[in-house]
Amino acid sequence: MTPDYRAGCAYIDGEFLPIAEARISILDMGFSRSDCTYDVVAVWEGGFFRLADHLNRFERSCSCLQLHPPYAREAITEVLFECVRRSGLRDAYVEMIATRGVPAAGERDIRRISNRFYAYAIPYVWISRPDQQARGLHMVVARDVERISTRAVDPTVKNFHWGDLVRGLFEAYDREADTAVLVDANGYVTEGPGFNLFACYRGQLITPSDGVLQGITRQTVLELAAEEGVPARVGRVEPGLLAQASEIFVTSTAGGVMPVTLLDGAPVGDGQPGPLTARLRARYWDAHRAGRWVTPVNYAGR
Amino acid sequence: MTPDYRAGCAYIDGEFLPIAEARISILDMGFSRSDCTYDVVAVWEGGFFRLADHLNRFERSCSCLQLHPPYAREAITEVLFECVRRSGLRDAYVEMIATRGVPAAGERDIRRISNRFYAYAIPYVWISRPDQQARGLHMVVARDVERISTRAVDPTVKNFHWGDLVRGLFEAYDREADTAVLVDANGYVTEGPGFNLFACYRGQLITPSDGVLQGITRQTVLELAAEEGVPARVGRVEPGLLAQASEIFVTSTAGGVMPVTLLDGAPVGDGQPGPLTARLRARYWDAHRAGRWVTPVNYAGR
Repeated sequence: MTPDYRAGCAYIDGEFLPIAEARISILDMGFSRSDCTYDVVAVWEGGFFRLADHLNRFERSCSCLQLHPPYAREAITEVLFECVRRSGLRDAYVEMIATRGVPAAGERDIRRISNRFYAYAIPYVWISRPDQQARGLHMVVARDVERISTRAVDPTVKNFHWGDLVRGLFEAYDREADTAVLVDANGYVTEGPGFNLFACYRGQLITPSDGVLQGITRQTVLELAAEEGVPARVGRVEPGLLAQASEIFVTSTAGGVMPVTLLDGAPVGDGQPGPLTARLRARYWDAHRAGRWVTPVNYAGR
Repeated sequence: MTPDYRAGCAYIDGEFLPIAEARISILDMGFSRSDCTYDVVAVWEGGFFRLADHLNRFERSCSCLQLHPPYAREAITEVLFECVRRSGLRDAYVEMIATRGVPAAGERDIRRISNRFYAYAIPYVWISRPDQQARGLHMVVARDVERISTRAVDPTVKNFHWGDLVRGLFEAYDREADTAVLVDANGYVTEGPGFNLFACYRGQLITPSDGVLQGITRQTVLELAAEEGVPARVGRVEPGLLAQASEIFVTSTAGGVMPVTLLDGAPVGDGQPGPLTARLRARYWDAHRAGRWVTPVNYAGR
């Protein structure tokens, strides 16, 4: 009997498995030391979006952490396509992960561990619910927690060190919001759980330069803004600027461009998703339909 | 056929398994967000060491992270004993883990996820090799990375956010040392991968007060030092103090008391494991043989 991959298909230790059966060793240091990196690429209407950019970033992340996954780029690409193909999903969230691996008994030298590679495709993930996106996200600037310093963990190397972001989420819940953005030790705005942030201030878009993932959705928005003739820049963002912004939105591979309409309990602009956000959001999804950034999946076979 | 638990026994989703078969879902946020906590307790010569203290800390850690594992203290205790019993190990490293769990499809609210509990017993782990312990560890004070701030991730809640510690290890390797201790953003010494640190300076022991796990081996050493009439205190430690220390040692449930004899390439004291380190180490292991801190395992059955 063919396994049922419709809820998602994973690739673990050389085998394709239904997502519900996809498990990793409890001794993998990717878990027990969060010693791993990952990347997430979207499949939308049957095509990967900016796959080469995600693979480039994943390779850089592995290199920064001295991780050497057992597959080269071509093999990784083939695994990702095969996960999507087996799942049959037209809109998918596709994750690739490289971990330090499982040390042999008694081994303490992390250079002498065989690194592992995992991947899976599951139905497309939205970091916020449809109703939250429609009304706009309610966000707080976290007060009780700061973002992990770049001198401790490099945020440009995509990682699972979410302890600070999870604390931010709980603070958001306590303050009756949906999510939180974190500031760094110097008081500058960074990012939130799973997203980069943009503000429109005096007719210009700005997104934080430091202490953030160089998000590919963020990059896409910067490129689309340039094409639309919307001035946009990367720079330091103080919470005070957010409080005066006419629009705020967040960006993520898991959801695209999502408006923020309430910040620390006060309306952003007129409290409705703004026109610039709507325009970039439409352009973002248009760009998924075909063209330069899309690599179609051949669902019928190789 | 009875499964072979000799290499270790794990408890996953209600089932006891040989450690080689112990796997967790790739979608468990304990992995994908490092949203989890854990504790490690040693079994030595057939008895748990300071089990109540480890369980107390684990319960506090879960509470701090708003994790609610599906078992109460008595059930967790029974699982730990059963893992050890099935493995037959007289000297074991016993880990208990609580994770956020696997979200239902589309669920983004981390309050609405069933938390999970895992545990395992494997042969006792030493964070350094026997030859390294005999000659004393070679340590560096990391220069290229700083410890994650306590304002981002609370180090008193035992966690898998080891990105900074792993960077420290690679720096140690580059500088031909075994391990590294990290400083915080203010330049104070904190801890290293898996250990607290003590220095003997002007006849007095000191261990860092802030930015560290409140280690139970650290606590044991403080208590044994008091009994031995050795002055010891908890305070801020600058790297300059370490450079002038007559002895340095590290403490861990995975190895006890381990001397450091080379710091940043220079000998600590006379470059040999020191007499105070040896005395406390002997007292530490004596305390495992019986008495107030030991809970014997009944290997024959319940």
